[in-house]
Formats: sequence, C-alpha cells, structure tokens
Amino acid sequence: PLSTTSTPSHFHNERQLLAPTETGMARLSLTDADAKVRKWFAEEVQKLGCALSIDQMGNMFARQSGSKKSSAPMIAMGSHLDTQPRGGRYDGILGVIAALEVLRTMKENNFKTNYDVGIVNWTNEEGARFPKSMCSSGVWAGAIPIQKAWDLRDIHDPNVTLRSELERHGYLGDIACSSDPATGFTLGAHFELHIEQGPILQETGRSIGIVQGAQGYRWLTVTVKGKDAHTGTTPLSARHDAMLAASKMIVASNAIAKRHDALASTGIIRVPSNASTNTLPSDVTFTLDIRHPEDRAVHAVQEEFLKAFATISSEDGRGVSFDWTLDTDSPAVKFDQGCVESIKAVADHIVGPGKSMYMTSGAGHDTVYTSKHCPSAMIFVPCRDGVSHHPTEYCTPEDCALGTQALLEAVVHYDQT
Amino acid sequence: PLSTTSTPSHFHNERQLLAPTETGMARLSLTDADAKVRKWFAEEVQKLGCALSIDQMGNMFARQSGSKKSSAPMIAMGSHLDTQPRGGRYDGILGVIAALEVLRTMKENNFKTNYDVGIVNWTNEEGARFPKSMCSSGVWAGAIPIQKAWDLRDIHDPNVTLRSELERHGYLGDIACSSDPATGFTLGAHFELHIEQGPILQETGRSIGIVQGAQGYRWLTVTVKGKDAHTGTTPLSARHDAMLAASKMIVASNAIAKRHDALASTGIIRVPSNASTNTLPSDVTFTLDIRHPEDRAVHAVQEEFLKAFATISSEDGRGVSFDWTLDTDSPAVKFDQGCVESIKAVADHIVGPGKSMYMTSGAGHDTVYTSKHCPSAMIFVPCRDGVSHHPTEYCTPEDCALGTQALLEAVVHYDQT
Ligand SMILES: NC(=O)NCCC(=O)O
Ligand SMILES: NC(=O)NCCC(=O)O
Repeated sequence: PLSTTSTPSHFHNERQLLAPTETGMARLSLTDADAKVRKWFAEEVQKLGCALSIDQMGNMFARQSGSKKSSAPMIAMGSHLDTQPRGGRYDGILGVIAALEVLRTMKENNFKTNYDVGIVNWTNEEGARFPKSMCSSGVWAGAIPIQKAWDLRDIHDPNVTLRSELERHGYLGDIACSSDPATGFTLGAHFELHIEQGPILQETGRSIGIVQGAQGYRWLTVTVKGKDAHTGTTPLSARHDAMLAASKMIVASNAIAKRHDALASTGIIRVPSNASTNTLPSDVTFTLDIRHPEDRAVHAVQEEFLKAFATISSEDGRGVSFDWTLDTDSPAVKFDQGCVESIKAVADHIVGPGKSMYMTSGAGHDTVYTSKHCPSAMIFVPCRDGVSHHPTEYCTPEDCALGTQALLEAVVHYDQT
Repeated sequence: PLSTTSTPSHFHNERQLLAPTETGMARLSLTDADAKVRKWFAEEVQKLGCALSIDQMGNMFARQSGSKKSSAPMIAMGSHLDTQPRGGRYDGILGVIAALEVLRTMKENNFKTNYDVGIVNWTNEEGARFPKSMCSSGVWAGAIPIQKAWDLRDIHDPNVTLRSELERHGYLGDIACSSDPATGFTLGAHFELHIEQGPILQETGRSIGIVQGAQGYRWLTVTVKGKDAHTGTTPLSARHDAMLAASKMIVASNAIAKRHDALASTGIIRVPSNASTNTLPSDVTFTLDIRHPEDRAVHAVQEEFLKAFATISSEDGRGVSFDWTLDTDSPAVKFDQGCVESIKAVADHIVGPGKSMYMTSGAGHDTVYTSKHCPSAMIFVPCRDGVSHHPTEYCTPEDCALGTQALLEAVVHYDQT
C-alpha cells in the first residue's frame, strides 16, 4: 500500500473516509514489496497443489493438473501483480487474485477441468520501474529480446538492472522465457480479467466487457524548430514562433482524430530549460499518441497529421520547421474467436446480453503478446469513472465477483469445447 | 566575453569566421567581470575630469561641468554595462560606451556644453542574475523599494544577495538611490542610445529610430486544470483535456492579438513532472506576454483572451477549468516631447528624414523609469536580424557611429534649447 507516512496529518480525516481498497498501491516490479507478494502467491498456489515454474524473466507459472492427464499445454489465467508508483489495487492484481479464487473454487467443489489449468504472474507489466511495458510477456512472445529486457535499468538508480533484481530475489528461473515447448513454458490459451481503465462500461451500465482485441497505437515525438526572439520587439510577421505552431498542431491533431473516430493525445510538451516569459522559445517538443482499432486508420490519421503540420509550419510569421520520430508502433490485435465466444457465452449466462458488451481494449496488456502464440482473450470489468494508475482506482466487490465468475466459466467453457 | 573554453574544438573553424565583436558577452551584474568594467569606466571618466558619484544601488553617475557653472541637474546619457548570460556586446553597453565617446569628443574639440552633462551606468538592468529587470533605475524612480532590490537573490546561489555583492565590490555608495535632489542624484534629462532589439529598422532600411515611448505590457500565468487520464482508454468525449485546451488558448490569444495589432507570446509551457506519453496531464501552465503601445488596447486584448478562454474551457469532452495570475503590469510610457524633438532634429541633420523613423520601444529600458522624473527619450540603431540577448547580437560600426553622433547632437541640441 502507499505509505501513510507521506500523508500530511491534516488529510488524516479525509483519508479515513476512504475504504482500505481505495487507498492505492505502490508495488514496483521486483522491489522487496513485489518479492513479498510473489512469495505469498507461490505459497497459495502450492497449497492448492499446483506445480510452480519460474522462467528467466521471473514469470511465475502455476499449473493445476486436469483429469485427462494430457500433456497439452495448460489453459492459463494471467495478469500481473506489479503496479505504478501511484497505482491502484485492481490493475493487474485483480486478474491474478481472481485466477487464484477460480482454482480455490474448483478445489472446494472438487471440480476437475479436462485439461491442465493454471495462473501466470507476468513480470514488469507496468514498465514503471524498468521502462518497458508488458515487458516479460513480450519476451515470452519473442517480441522483445531477453538481453534488452534484462539490461533495463531502474529509472531512478542506473546501477540496478532488471536482471540484477531478478538475481537478488531468486527469480532468475532456469527455464527459457519462451512459448517454445522444447525450452520454455508454453500455453494452451490465455484468459485475462482486467479493469477496463476507461469509462465505457460504467457509462453504459454494463458489468462485463467481452474484449475482442486491442487497438493499434503509434507514439510520435514532434520537434518544432523556430527561433528564439524577444516577445516585445519582434513583430508577429517576423517570428518563427515554435510555440504557436506546436499549439496549432496539437489542436489540429485532435480535430483530425475526431473525424476518424480515433484518439490523439499529447501527454508531454517541453520548451528549452532557459525559456522565459519574454523570449519566444527556440523550439518546442511534444508527444502524440494515436490510437484506433484498425491499423489502416492509425496510419491514415498519422498521414493527415503530417500534412496538416506541414501546412501549419508556414502559416504564421516567417514559419517554422518540424521533425518527428516514431517511438512506439503497436499494431492492432484481434483476439481468438473461440476464446471470445467462450466469454460471450458465459457473460450471457451470468449477467444477460444487456449487461455485457463487445469491446476493444484501449490499452496494451500481456494478452496482446500471448495472443501471438496461443488463443487468448480478455474480460473487462468497470472501474469507477474510468480511473486507473491512481490511488483512487476502484472496482466494486460485486463487479470483481462477476468478473471472477466470468473468468471461471470462460475457462471451463473453453476446457469443454 | 563568452569563454572560448566551452567551445568544442570542431567548432573552432566556424568560430574563427566571426569577428571579435560577434562573439557575445557574459557579464552578469555585480560579478567580478562587472566589477572590472566598472573600475575601467571609473578610470575613463575620471581621466576626462568628470566627478563620479555612486548611489546605494551601485548606479554610477559621471558628471562633466558645463560652462554656465549652473547648479541645474546634469543632462545624462545612460544605459547599462551588464549583460544576459548568453548576451551580446551591444545591448546596454553601446549606450554607455557611446556616452563616453561623446564626452571624449567634446573634450578633444574643446567643446563645452552650457549645462552639466554626464553618464549613468545603471546597475542590474538585465535582471538576469538578480531577477528584476531595470532594477536600479526602478529604485531611483521610486517604483521599486530599495529593500526589495537589495534582497534579490542570485538565481543560482541563494546565499548571495544584490546587497552582499554591492558590499563585496565596494559599490554600496553613500548617496540615496533617488531622484530627490535633497538626498539622491537628480537628473535634468536622460538620453539613451540602444540597439532596437527588433527587425524594423533593418527591414525598412533606416539607421536611426526616434523612440517616442515604450509600449505597455502585462504578463499572465494561466493554469488549465483538467484530469489525468489514460490516453488509450479514455474517449475524447470523457476527457478533461488540459493540454488541448491550453493549445487552443495559445492559438486564440495569437489570433486576438493580431486583430488588435497587439503582440501575444507564450515563452513557457509546463506539464507536471510525472507526465508521460500515455497519460493526459492533470494540468498545464503557460505564460502570456501581451503588448501594445496603448494601455487601453492591452486591457481590451486581455479581456478578449479571458472570454475566449472561458469558451474554450467547455468546448471539448467534459471541459476544464482555468486560473490566471498577473505577474507584471508595465503601463505604456510616452517620452518627453522636447527630448524626442531634439532627437528628430539631429536625425534629420545626420541621416536625413528618409533614413530615420519614429518608433515605440517594444521592450522595457532604464529610460522608461527615468522618464517618470526627468525629460527622457531614446535613440535606436538597427541590430542584425533583430537579434539580441544572444552571442550573435550585432550592430555595424557604421550604425554605432551614427547612433553615437545622434546622441552627441541630441544632448547638445537639448543643452541649447
Ligand atoms: N495497460 C496499460 O496501461 N498499458 C500500457 C501501454 C498503453 O499505453 O496502452
Ligand atoms: N530590454 C529588455 O529586454 N527589457 C526586459 C523587459 C521586457 O521584456 O521588455
């Protein structure tokens, strides 16, 4: 949990009004706090009789045998136990805890699946401490080279690498981090329960989102180059005003995205550190995050942005120039039709068709990577006001329970078809 | 001068192409470098037979007696010898060096003015080290309390104050920093030669600007409050997008200013330090610098800005809110008609009416403050491409000479009328 010692005493009363489940969580990947929850998780799955395997990225695979004693890879329920530095208690955690609850429920009811089922706790999904999100499912899927992942440095302490922390906590396992059955831990399917992280389920009054895939996204950094000049002595007509041009670009990107039913967002904007109120900055840098369920649309939107930016560059004063780089390219993903239909069937059964809906995930998740190697899909539950990555992140006990029930039934449905 | 040791060796050849007068100057107020030039200045004026007075802000007043032995206050030529950290060799410096050349020329030609004439070197005009511009002419004019000025801290070393540096260098003089003849050093008139710091003279092919006043300006800081949200999971309609709203405000402020023939500029924009590409920032802060020769227009423009900002605040998604503060209010100033006409007369004589023009200063100068207590005006000369506050700041020797000639003749003209 977030340390209460950092809470000023005059907030004490306000804090007491929050339920313990609304006070957030700070459990960065491979910290002592993460090692503690991993130990707890290992004990819980071993109590249930699961076999536990750890791979070379510290991914934890708990396997419960099915009645068929088949050698087929297990049907996995996976997510992550790490959080953002000012994170909540649901993002990732719900998917792992619900999976545990599913195995417990099966055991309590003496219920055996046909095939092996189990749980995966993926390492460093958040990328908040070691800056690469969905890091270890990415290595498992072959999308991220393991050396690159091992070499990631703690963003606050460059002497600490992801690998050194795996070693310190005894989580540098001996099986390969790979979906290859010969060397790694392969999966038969992957189901992930997750909070939506957006407001759509809440706004439409649904309890379960049947996630059919994840939208594509591209991250650009745009640098607008103008010329520093005195704000009081430089006529508008003589300016190379990078700030004005960058502002116009951000406004234009939003308007273009809207026309395409896409998303465009600027999270970061920067002027040189010697900026002052009475000097036009020499250059302005900003990020752009473009998203749409169709890759074609993501690319079309980007093309329109760049055309608009070129026009804007020569609109005012003496004009500006601009450069851009592509920082992330994450194509759209469609989840497995069979897995999606398992979730649809159980959602209809649990809450009825009016209380569930098909959705596309706005964010990336471990399932985006698993889906490249095994049938995969996700279940979303509502989170209050769409808030996540924040201590006030919240999902009602009722919705947590409905999501967990859906996870259980989806696995059973998939196991039986 | 800027230290050449900070120049990487592969730039060596490029640097050699610059004339020594194009390599900039770093002489922050009351540093050892400033103490050195003050010592040099004191020696030069004393060689000419001037009496030198230092006031409690370290302002240096050099006084040359006129033939009338009148007790009238001297006709001053003033500017400043301090520079920006990456400044040029002309801003301020030209006004003091030219004044010295005027006194030398008079002496070499055995020319005596009727009334006393002299030079002022104003302390900390730039406000680059001790952050208040036109600081000591402001104290002299009674616009800035001396204690506030003395207490200004070095922006990089909070243990050093303006007063402690005055004391260290022996520049805490014993006369009051005041225009009051009973306690301070009063002036009969103030003429300042300065580079334009803008491109208008160069663009219109003029050599001399007859400065009739300085425009008004107001500095605002605007904070737009939105809500941090995931860029991938938050529909445009559900956003409180502070970045989009701030961008629209900057675009609107420019368009409004343009309609009023005013200037609007944003030099600084900031998002919280925990910003990331895939999170909408919770809030965005930016500065606005509004200028126009008429205070009425400055206020009208500000009113229109605030109305437009209110509209923008509710235009997108779930809206944002905004706050603003007024950081600086510098009303427009009209210089003395007599001083201005002295400059006009000599400009016509030196370069002819087609090569000079009436102007309004875009920036603040020491003369803005002196004009509150004595007849004052300014002479502008062109600077290359309007660049100042930059090592490449440049004024040709020919234009420096024309400006100096105009300063000499304006003082003589004023002395005789
Ligand atoms: N779930 C999540 O926040 N993933 C990070 C990558 C993204 O921005 O979608
Ligand atoms: N000359 C000058 O740059 N003054 C500073 C105040 C202003 O921004 O006008």
